Amino acid sequence: MGQPEQRDEAGDGSPPLGVGMVGYAFMGAAHSQGWRTVGRVFDLPRRPVLAAVCGRDGAAVRAMADRHGWAAAETDWRALIERDDVDLVDICTPGDSHAEIALAALAAGKHVLCEKPLANTVEEAEAMAGAAEAARARGQVAMVGFNYRRVPAAALARSMVAEGRLGELRHVRVAYLQDWLTDPEFPLTWRLRKEAAGSGALGDLGAHIVDLAQYVAGERLAGVSALTETFVRERPLPEGASSGLSGAGGAGRGAVTVDDAALFTGRFTTGALASFEATRYATGRKNALRIELNGARGSLSFDLERLNELWYHDGTEPDTHAGFRRILVTEPDHPYLAAWWPPGHGLGYEHTFVHQARDLVHAVAEGTQPLPSFADGLQVQRVLAAVEESAAKNSVFTSVAV
Amino acid sequence: MGQPEQRDEAGDGSPPLGVGMVGYAFMGAAHSQGWRTVGRVFDLPRRPVLAAVCGRDGAAVRAMADRHGWAAAETDWRALIERDDVDLVDICTPGDSHAEIALAALAAGKHVLCEKPLANTVEEAEAMAGAAEAARARGQVAMVGFNYRRVPAAALARSMVAEGRLGELRHVRVAYLQDWLTDPEFPLTWRLRKEAAGSGALGDLGAHIVDLAQYVAGERLAGVSALTETFVRERPLPEGASSGLSGAGGAGRGAVTVDDAALFTGRFTTGALASFEATRYATGRKNALRIELNGARGSLSFDLERLNELWYHDGTEPDTHAGFRRILVTEPDHPYLAAWWPPGHGLGYEHTFVHQARDLVHAVAEGTQPLPSFADGLQVQRVLAAVEESAAKNSVFTSVAV
Amino acid sequence: MGQPEQRDEAGDGSPPLGVGMVGYAFMGAAHSQGWRTVGRVFDLPRRPVLAAVCGRDGAAVRAMADRHGWAAAETDWRALIERDDVDLVDICTPGDSHAEIALAALAAGKHVLCEKPLANTVEEAEAMAGAAEAARARGQVAMVGFNYRRVPAAALARSMVAEGRLGELRHVRVAYLQDWLTDPEFPLTWRLRKEAAGSGALGDLGAHIVDLAQYVAGERLAGVSALTETFVRERPLPEGASSGLSGAGGAGRGAVTVDDAALFTGRFTTGALASFEATRYATGRKNALRIELNGARGSLSFDLERLNELWYHDGTEPDTHAGFRRILVTEPDHPYLAAWWPPGHGLGYEHTFVHQARDLVHAVAEGTQPLPSFADGLQVQRVLAAVEESAAKNSVFTSVAV
Amino acid sequence: MGQPEQRDEAGDGSPPLGVGMVGYAFMGAAHSQGWRTVGRVFDLPRRPVLAAVCGRDGAAVRAMADRHGWAAAETDWRALIERDDVDLVDICTPGDSHAEIALAALAAGKHVLCEKPLANTVEEAEAMAGAAEAARARGQVAMVGFNYRRVPAAALARSMVAEGRLGELRHVRVAYLQDWLTDPEFPLTWRLRKEAAGSGALGDLGAHIVDLAQYVAGERLAGVSALTETFVRERPLPEGASSGLSGAGGAGRGAVTVDDAALFTGRFTTGALASFEATRYATGRKNALRIELNGARGSLSFDLERLNELWYHDGTEPDTHAGFRRILVTEPDHPYLAAWWPPGHGLGYEHTFVHQARDLVHAVAEGTQPLPSFADGLQVQRVLAAVEESAAKNSVFTSVAV
Repeated sequence: MGQPEQRDEAGDGSPPLGVGMVGYAFMGAAHSQGWRTVGRVFDLPRRPVLAAVCGRDGAAVRAMADRHGWAAAETDWRALIERDDVDLVDICTPGDSHAEIALAALAAGKHVLCEKPLANTVEEAEAMAGAAEAARARGQVAMVGFNYRRVPAAALARSMVAEGRLGELRHVRVAYLQDWLTDPEFPLTWRLRKEAAGSGALGDLGAHIVDLAQYVAGERLAGVSALTETFVRERPLPEGASSGLSGAGGAGRGAVTVDDAALFTGRFTTGALASFEATRYATGRKNALRIELNGARGSLSFDLERLNELWYHDGTEPDTHAGFRRILVTEPDHPYLAAWWPPGHGLGYEHTFVHQARDLVHAVAEGTQPLPSFADGLQVQRVLAAVEESAAKNSVFTSVAV
Repeated sequence: MGQPEQRDEAGDGSPPLGVGMVGYAFMGAAHSQGWRTVGRVFDLPRRPVLAAVCGRDGAAVRAMADRHGWAAAETDWRALIERDDVDLVDICTPGDSHAEIALAALAAGKHVLCEKPLANTVEEAEAMAGAAEAARARGQVAMVGFNYRRVPAAALARSMVAEGRLGELRHVRVAYLQDWLTDPEFPLTWRLRKEAAGSGALGDLGAHIVDLAQYVAGERLAGVSALTETFVRERPLPEGASSGLSGAGGAGRGAVTVDDAALFTGRFTTGALASFEATRYATGRKNALRIELNGARGSLSFDLERLNELWYHDGTEPDTHAGFRRILVTEPDHPYLAAWWPPGHGLGYEHTFVHQARDLVHAVAEGTQPLPSFADGLQVQRVLAAVEESAAKNSVFTSVAV
Repeated sequence: MGQPEQRDEAGDGSPPLGVGMVGYAFMGAAHSQGWRTVGRVFDLPRRPVLAAVCGRDGAAVRAMADRHGWAAAETDWRALIERDDVDLVDICTPGDSHAEIALAALAAGKHVLCEKPLANTVEEAEAMAGAAEAARARGQVAMVGFNYRRVPAAALARSMVAEGRLGELRHVRVAYLQDWLTDPEFPLTWRLRKEAAGSGALGDLGAHIVDLAQYVAGERLAGVSALTETFVRERPLPEGASSGLSGAGGAGRGAVTVDDAALFTGRFTTGALASFEATRYATGRKNALRIELNGARGSLSFDLERLNELWYHDGTEPDTHAGFRRILVTEPDHPYLAAWWPPGHGLGYEHTFVHQARDLVHAVAEGTQPLPSFADGLQVQRVLAAVEESAAKNSVFTSVAV
Repeated sequence: MGQPEQRDEAGDGSPPLGVGMVGYAFMGAAHSQGWRTVGRVFDLPRRPVLAAVCGRDGAAVRAMADRHGWAAAETDWRALIERDDVDLVDICTPGDSHAEIALAALAAGKHVLCEKPLANTVEEAEAMAGAAEAARARGQVAMVGFNYRRVPAAALARSMVAEGRLGELRHVRVAYLQDWLTDPEFPLTWRLRKEAAGSGALGDLGAHIVDLAQYVAGERLAGVSALTETFVRERPLPEGASSGLSGAGGAGRGAVTVDDAALFTGRFTTGALASFEATRYATGRKNALRIELNGARGSLSFDLERLNELWYHDGTEPDTHAGFRRILVTEPDHPYLAAWWPPGHGLGYEHTFVHQARDLVHAVAEGTQPLPSFADGLQVQRVLAAVEESAAKNSVFTSVAV
C-alpha cells in the first residue's frame, strides 16, 4: 500500500478539507500535484486532504491512488460523492460527464471544482450555473478550472489592466497553437469525437483563450464571426477502442467529428476588437497560448511557452527610451510568488494547479465566491456556441447570448 | 545646382534606363535611394538613370531633385511622361491618382512601377490591369510596388514553401501592427481621408499583408470574413489643410473617413485557413509585419521588425532536436545577398527598394513580366473589396472575385 | 500536528529510503519539495520517506517539519544522523559545516547528499572525497547537489555533446548573473562573510558554472586566470546579527569579507578556451546562468531564466537553412520528461531537486555511483582554489591541482 | 565610362569635399556606399565628392571606380594623395600600410579617415597620433574608422550612460563572435598572416570591442589579463597567393601566424570589471558583437546581429514592473534617425558608414576634432599590446600604457 495523506486537524483547530477527485488521467495527475503541494507552500485556512479518487478501472485507479497519495479509490463516482470524508468534488473527466457529476455533487452538499470547458452544451452549463447559484445560498462554492488564470504572469497582466495601465483597450489578440494532430496517423481518441468532447480545438483550446482574454481584459465579448475546419477527416481507431464508432473508413478508421481549428474575430462590449485562433496543426508550436492586448496607454504580451515572462510596453514613456520590457514574473510581490523561490527561479505548468487549489481553499474557508464561477463558465460556453453558430452560418457576426 | 546622375552608355553598349518619378515624399525618398544604389551594387543589364522627378510644388520638387540626384524636376506629371529621357514612370503618389497616371504612362509607351495599393477601387485596378496587359504585347512592363516581397527573408520563405518544405499548408497568420494613431490628437492627414487614401489601415497595411501572404504561400484567397473599426472618429485638421474637408467638429477638426483597423479571416483555395490583422493602434508595435505559415511538414515565421531573420521549424526532424531556428538571412546564397556584405551584416528597410529596382530592370531588359504584375495588384484589390463588403454585411463570408 | 509521510513498504517489498535533512532554509524547502514529489512522479526502486529534519531552533524546525511533511524534527544534527529511520543524510547547511556533518554521516553508515559547494576549503573537500571513497567500498553512496545538471535542457546538452554533435570543442562561455547585491544597503548576511560562506559569488555561483561547464563539455579545466572584486566593502549588519563581526563602520555596519564578483578565463585539457563570470551585481539579471559551447560541428546555448529551452546550431547543415534553433525541452524523449506533462508544458526550478532525488534513489538502490561524486565536488573546489590563487597573484595563469 | 559624381558647388557656395580612397575591397565598397549616400540623406555643410579611388590592379580599380561612382582611378596611392581634387584621404587598406599612407596624407595637408585598427604596432600608432596632432594645428582632421560607434543603438547607449542612467558602472561584458574559420580548409588569406594583419581576431574583432566598450562606458581600461589561441595552425594557401609564405606544410599549405581567438578580462580605471572575447570560431554566430553594461542604477545590452535594438533595464523602477526593455532604435529622436525612415523601419550595417561620413564632414567643415581621434586609436592599440603582452606572460595582469 502507498502513502495516503492523513486526515488530521490543522494546528489551529480548523477542519481539513477532504477532496474527492473524479478522473485520473492527465488532468487527474496535475490536480493531484496541486492538492498535494498547496499546503506545503502556502499558508491555508484549511488543509486539503486527498481523500479519494475515482475511476472506472479498479486496478488502475488503485495504482493511481497509491502513486499520487489518495487515501482511497472508488470506481463509482456516486459512491465518491457520498463519502463523508469528501467535502469537495474535483471533476477531471471529459466534458460529457461534467454536468451529471457536478449536479449530483452540488445536490449532495459538496463544493465543486470542475475542469474546463464547463460542459459540452449551453443547456448543461445553464443547469450547472443554476445549481451552483442555488448551492451558493447553502454555503457551497463552485469553480471552473480555467487554470491559466493562475499563471502568475496572467494574474499580473490582469492586475495591470485593472490598474488602468493600458488605458482604453483597442485590441486583444489571442491564439492557442499546438501541433499534435499534424500527423494524420495520430489515432481517433475521445478528444476527436463530438459525443465525448463536445468540440475539438474550440472547446479544448478555444475555451481557455476565451476565458483568459475576457479575464485579463476585464471585459466580455459581445459577438463573434467564425471559421472552423477539420483538416483530417478520418483517422485510425485507437487500439482497444470501443466498437460501433462508425462503419466509415473500413477496418480500423473512423470519422473525426470535431473541429481541428477554429478562427474567430469579435468585438468586446466596450468596442475593442479581438481575434482568436485555436488549432492543433501549428507545426512546431507545442503549447503556444499567446495573448496580446493593446490599449491607448500601453500594451501587454504573454506566451505560455515562456510562462514566467510578461512583456509590457508603457506607452506613456518618451519614445526615446520606450520599448516592450520583459518582466520576469518571479518577484516576491508578483501574484503567488511570495510563497515560492527567489527572483529568477521560474515556475512551471503544474504550479497553476497549486495556485488554483490555494484560491479555492480560501474561498471555501472564507465563504467567498471563487472565480471563475460556473456562471463565468456558462458565459464562455455561450461564446463557444456563438462561434459554432457563426461558423455554421457563413461566418455571419453572431451575438453572444447574455 | 546638385549632382545629377549622368545619362551614359553602359560599357557593353546597352542603353541606360531613364526613370521618371511622380511623387516625392516618404516613398519618393525610398525609391530614390533604390534607383540611385541599385547599379552600384548589382550587375545590371541596363543602368538606371534618375532622369526626372515630378511634384506640384516647384521649389520643393527642385530641392528634392537636388538632394536625391534627379537630373530634372517637373511640376506636371503629364510633362514628365512625355519626356524622351524617361523610359519608366515610377508612381509614388497617393492611391487616388495611380490609375490616371499609370494609364497615361502606359499609353505613352513607358514602363511603369506603381506603388501599392494599385488603386483605390477595383474598377480602376481593372482598367490598369487591362492596360498593362495590352502594353505587355507592345513590349512594355508594369509592376506593383509590394516591396516586402524583396525582403531577403520573405523571398527565402517563398522559395522554401515552393520547395515543399512546409508540405500541405494549414495556417497562414498575418498581422501588420503599427501604433502611430494611438494619440487621438494626431492630425487628419490624407491617409485618414477616404477620397485620397481609399481606405485606412486596410489599404495601407492590409494590402501589404494580403500580397505577402499570397506570395509566400503561393496560393490565393478564396474568401474572407471581416470586421473593420474606426476608433477615433474625429481628429484635428492638419496645419495648412485644404478647405472643404467637412464642417464636422467646428473649427479645426474633421471626420476620419477610413478604417483604423481591419481584422479578417479567410480560406485559401487549397483549404488552408488565414487570419489577418491590420491596425495603427497597436501601442508599442512600430512596424510589426508578422507572418507565420504552418504546414504539414514545417513552419515559417517572420517579423519585419527583425527583417534579417527567418524562423523555420522542420517538422520532419526527430522531436528530440527539433525547434524553430533563426536563419540569419545574410548568407551569400540567400536572395539578393551575394551582392551585399559578409554573413551577419544585416540589411535595412530601404534595401527592399534596391532589390525591387534590380528585379524591374532585369524584367525591362529581358522582356519578362515583373512580379507582382498589375493583375496581381488587381487581385489584391479584389481581396480588399471582399473585406470591405464582408465588413459591411455583418462579417458574412464573402468570396473574392476572380 | 501536521501530516508526516508514512514509513511503509513499497508494493514490491523493497524497503523505503529514510531521508534526514540538516538545514531548513531556502535549500531545505527546495529539497523537501524534491523528496516529497519524486515518488509521485517517477517509478522508483525505493520510495523516499521524509523521516526527520534538523535545525538549531526547535520551534522553527518543528514548524518547518509540519509544513513540509517531515515526520520528525531534531535540533542536533548528530542525533539526526543516529536515527535508525534515517538512511540518507541530506546536508543543506552553509558550507562551513558540510565537512563535519558529511564525515559523521558517512562514518555512521549513511548515504549522503551534500549541497554545493562541497566544502569551504580544498582540505575539507579532500577529506570528504576520501571518506566517500572509503564508504563506497561499504556500499554507501555520496553525491554533491549541483542541481543544475538536472535541468532537462542541461542534461540534453550533455548528451548532445557526448554524441559528438558539437565536434571538437573550441569555446565554452559561462556566466551566472544575479543582482541582489546592487543595493548597497542590502544587509551583511552569512553569505557575505568568509568564515561561513568560504567565498562570495565565486563559491555560490561560480561553483555552479564550473561544474556545469565541465559536465556539459565532458572535459576538465587545466588552469585559470582570474580577477575578483568586492564592490561594496561595508554593509549594514542584519537585524539580530551576532556581535563581534567587526568594529568597522561604527554601530551597525560590518565588513564584507567575500568577493562580489569573479571573472576568470581558462583552458580545458583538450585545448578549448573558457570564460567564466559570477556576479551578484548584474542589475536586471535575476538568475541568468548562461552557457554557450562552440564546437567545430555545432553550438549549444542555454539560459536558466528560460530553463525549458536549449538552443542548438547544427554547423553541418547548409548555410541557407542553418540557424540556432530553440528546442523546447519538454518532449517525452527528453531527459526526465516522460514522467511529466505533455509537450510545451514547462517545468520550473524546483524540478531539478525532484530529478536529483530520482537519480540518487536509483544509485542507492542499484549500488551505483551517483554523479557528481564527492570527487567531482573536490575537483570543482580545486578549480575555485586556483581561481582564488590566480586572483591573488595578479591573475597569473594557475593550474588546477589534479 | 561610368557615372562619376560631379564636382559642383553646393547651393550655399561652400566648397565640395573631395574624397580619395585607398583600397577597394570589402571596406572600400562599404565606404563608397557611405560617401555616395551621405549627402542624399543628411544636410551637410560640405558635399562630399567621390574624387578618386586607388588600388594596385589598374583594371580592377577602374572597374570598381565605375561601379561605385568614383570619378578617377589611381594605381599609386602617392599619386592619389597629390591630387588637387582630393581633400580627404580615406584609408581602407590592410593595417600594415596604414601608417605610411596616413603620415604621407597628413604631410600633404589632407584630412584623413583611417580604417581600424589604426596600425599594426604601437610604434606606428604613436607616430600617426603625433602627426595627427601636429596636423590638427594646421586645420587638418584625422579620424579612425571604428564604425560601430555609429550604429544608432550604440550611440544611444553612450548617451544613456552619459546621462547617468546606469549609475556607477560595475560590469562591462563584450564579445565579438564570428565563425568563418570553423572550416579548417578555409584558406590562408592576408588576415591570417601576422606581417599583413598584425594580429588575428584580436586586431580585427578585438579592436572593435575595446573601442566600443570604452566609448559606451565613457571610461578606459587600466589593465588586462589575457589568453590567446590559434586552433588551426596550418591552412591551405589561397589560389594565386604570393610565394615565400613559408616552406611549412609542403605543397600548398602555410602557417597561420595570428591568433584565432583572444579572451581577456580587465579593470576600468573606475573599478568596473570587464570581460572580452574575440573569436572566429563561434559556430553559428555570424557577426555577434555583443555588449552588456551593468551599473548600480541600470543596465544596457546590445547585439550587432539585431542592430536596430537596444535593451535597457531601469533599475530604479519597482521590481513589479521592471524588466529589460527592447528599445527599437528607429525613432526620430534617436541618433541619426531623423534623416531616415519612419519608426520601425530598420537600418542596416552599411548605414554606419553613412553616419561616419556625416560626422566627419561636419568635423572638417566646422574645424572640430572628429572622434575617435588617432589618439583614441593609439590608446586602443595600447590595450591590444597589453593583451598580447599578458598572453605572452602567462596571463599576468598587465597595465595599459598611458
